[in-house]
Amino acid sequence: MDSGDAAAVRRLIDKDQIVDLVHHYSYYVDHRLYDEVVQLFTEDCVVDYGPGVPPVRSRVGLRQMFGHPGAGFAATSHHNSNVLVTFEDDDHASVRTSVYAWHRRADGGTPRLWGYYHDSMVRLPEGWRIAERQLWTWGRGLEYGDALGP
Amino acid sequence: MDSGDAAAVRRLIDKDQIVDLVHHYSYYVDHRLYDEVVQLFTEDCVVDYGPGVPPVRSRVGLRQMFGHPGAGFAATSHHNSNVLVTFEDDDHASVRTSVYAWHRRADGGTPRLWGYYHDSMVRLPEGWRIAERQLWTWGRGLEYGDALGP
Amino acid sequence: MDSGDAAAVRRLIDKDQIVDLVHHYSYYVDHRLYDEVVQLFTEDCVVDYGPGVPPVRSRVGLRQMFGHPGAGFAATSHHNSNVLVTFEDDDHASVRTSVYAWHRRADGGTPRLWGYYHDSMVRLPEGWRIAERQLWTWGRGLEYGDALGP
Repeated sequence: MDSGDAAAVRRLIDKDQIVDLVHHYSYYVDHRLYDEVVQLFTEDCVVDYGPGVPPVRSRVGLRQMFGHPGAGFAATSHHNSNVLVTFEDDDHASVRTSVYAWHRRADGGTPRLWGYYHDSMVRLPEGWRIAERQLWTWGRGLEYGDALGP
Repeated sequence: MDSGDAAAVRRLIDKDQIVDLVHHYSYYVDHRLYDEVVQLFTEDCVVDYGPGVPPVRSRVGLRQMFGHPGAGFAATSHHNSNVLVTFEDDDHASVRTSVYAWHRRADGGTPRLWGYYHDSMVRLPEGWRIAERQLWTWGRGLEYGDALGP
Repeated sequence: MDSGDAAAVRRLIDKDQIVDLVHHYSYYVDHRLYDEVVQLFTEDCVVDYGPGVPPVRSRVGLRQMFGHPGAGFAATSHHNSNVLVTFEDDDHASVRTSVYAWHRRADGGTPRLWGYYHDSMVRLPEGWRIAERQLWTWGRGLEYGDALGP
């Protein structure tokens, strides 16, 4: 294996860990493992779910946001696709992931969302973490029950 | 490449084969290649599609389940996401995969499903195989035609 | 690392580049970066979006197809899954990818599509490119507004 291949392999190993980070977010949220979710982020992370919601700042702030299960969804299912990783340097990467999310509300409504995560990942001594996450929403869908409702 | 990297590379190679196993299942089912589907499983596999359906036991049993095309769907489309592989040892892995499945029935109805596969994979002399599969369903959706129907 | 592992690593590196090619297509289309989209294809590519639409031939032809934004969609969201790469030789690969696509028309309608991309990839001096792409559509869905409309 020449030095070019060895460098490519190091990138593959890092990329694999970064992709797992994206997928663990969805897995933990869908399984309501909120303590585990926030461990994926840096202490001073910034998470922006889009217009109309102020960005959440810090791991502590993120845990508080996930701390009100009654205000949230009865179930969620996040489906990540098309994960694209661009390395800025050995310890920083920019990541784009397409997401299709299905939610079930307590009243039975099941809103859907189509969009992209725009993430900044950083390598810390303990591993790769999400430093910044922005959700860009292409569209939101009302399911049948919603559309017919009052 | 140091020994830590070499071990990481071995894991990447195994993980790639395991992820392909998950994807081949969907590809073969969607293309109605049922003889090929069951070759992905161990001879004594256990496949549990969830409450209301008894688990299928053995590759032979699984082939029989797929042997009644008239009782099945006119078309299916399985979309896997978020594949997470955890190695228990060199020859055993636990795998979680988010799935969004679209189906078309003979009557034109197109039910949807959102959930997770919980798989146990084992390395046999001929390669990685699925030893156990459980489908955890978050939700099922009725499409428009169903919802309006009698 | 023995020679078998080294060969497997070369395949992993190539496969990673090929999978990125599939994902970049969706990313560029969803972000309306059409000059970037066509750079993913060979000069003499053939792209077949299925029955009812003549195949597009050449990168120039593909750019023209994407050149009429008014005739297209107001927004698209392409979600790739289950990417399966089969190498025919060191420089040619056959790729199957499951796709779920959501579109929003200018009138607000949001048609959906479920299907598979069947791709032929080739390694050029500048990297892997898509030589042929066929879209196999399992189904198309009308969203609620369409179904109720006149």
